[in-house]
Amino acid sequence: MELLDAFKWRYATKKYDPSKKVDQILVDKIVKAAWIAPTSSGLQPFEVFVISNQDLKNKIVPISHGQEIVADCSHLLVFAAWDNYTAERIDHIYSHITKEREQPADRYQAYTDRLKSMYLNRPASENFAHAARQAYIAFGFAIAEAASLNVDTTPMEGFITEEVDKLLNLSEKGLKSVTLLPIGYRDEANDWLVSMNKVRHPEEGFVTTLN
Amino acid sequence: MELLDAFKWRYATKKYDPSKKVDQILVDKIVKAAWIAPTSSGLQPFEVFVISNQDLKNKIVPISHGQEIVADCSHLLVFAAWDNYTAERIDHIYSHITKEREQPADRYQAYTDRLKSMYLNRPASENFAHAARQAYIAFGFAIAEAASLNVDTTPMEGFITEEVDKLLNLSEKGLKSVTLLPIGYRDEANDWLVSMNKVRHPEEGFVTTLN
Repeated sequence: MELLDAFKWRYATKKYDPSKKVDQILVDKIVKAAWIAPTSSGLQPFEVFVISNQDLKNKIVPISHGQEIVADCSHLLVFAAWDNYTAERIDHIYSHITKEREQPADRYQAYTDRLKSMYLNRPASENFAHAARQAYIAFGFAIAEAASLNVDTTPMEGFITEEVDKLLNLSEKGLKSVTLLPIGYRDEANDWLVSMNKVRHPEEGFVTTLN
Repeated sequence: MELLDAFKWRYATKKYDPSKKVDQILVDKIVKAAWIAPTSSGLQPFEVFVISNQDLKNKIVPISHGQEIVADCSHLLVFAAWDNYTAERIDHIYSHITKEREQPADRYQAYTDRLKSMYLNRPASENFAHAARQAYIAFGFAIAEAASLNVDTTPMEGFITEEVDKLLNLSEKGLKSVTLLPIGYRDEANDWLVSMNKVRHPEEGFVTTLN
């Protein structure tokens, strides 16, 4: 199957079959897609939480506007971005890169100095907004990977981020939740959206070609 | 090829072979992937500009920190998000959806009223930040699609957005540029990054499993 066909197949699932669980091998692939996604300067400024615990999923329903998909899905992925950039975080990943590539310890010194002079002089809110955008690329990669595996997903922003942060103790990890991604298998008979066609802006208003 | 293999194959190309052009059929598929990506409430609050014009690409080099990839790539995609949400924009897409789905004209009235009461009472900057995040999902979809077609890409934030906006007259369209995506084919012999392994955070610091 071409990837575009998978993109046409996917839709924001509104009703999951709670009896159908996604195989761990497929869950791992979806998380790996998020992990391998590109990020600005390779900082990868976010983490992913994979929740299959039913109690925990149930607790997220009331803080996501009562959306039952959070409880009925097989696994709930939470994308949480760094609340700020710090020297430690920048050094941590670049020291890891240096080791993995067997490069001299100062190989990226000038580069990380430049990153620090840029990020460490900006307000935390601006850095968080930037980190969140990187998480959205990975969010896209995870949705794409799931579609390619015929696993249903529901991209979700409709939840109280502060409450999810509290439930998962994200602030003590220097993280803030940005998106949720229920994954699982659609309950086709009970999903109002599944039979509706996918509509987007007419392409002429979306794409401008400059030859 | 599995999509994850394509994700492993891709990297942020640092040197393009300017003699190799991406076939229009493949360009169209990459744009279509961005077009079909999910967005919050289906508003699709961004547009894509596809630049193959060499003069225009050359003009973008100095406003993207002198990065020659912008000139050497086959096509340069510019992702530009809505600068704000407006009643017209919300109504426009929902009247299109209603028509395409052959639904009664007021089918989404309550829904669009809710969207308006939420978005039209927020500052433009907050709405733009939200729209930009949606563009990043589509950016991820376009990168994924390109990888699946063995087309190289370079996800780019390093450019002066105001200058690109001016060059492409984006503000008169109510848009602001958020990312660039050069696409093309790598010049393997002259790309310093191509032979380096792809490094990410160790997975144990990236994924938390809550069973």
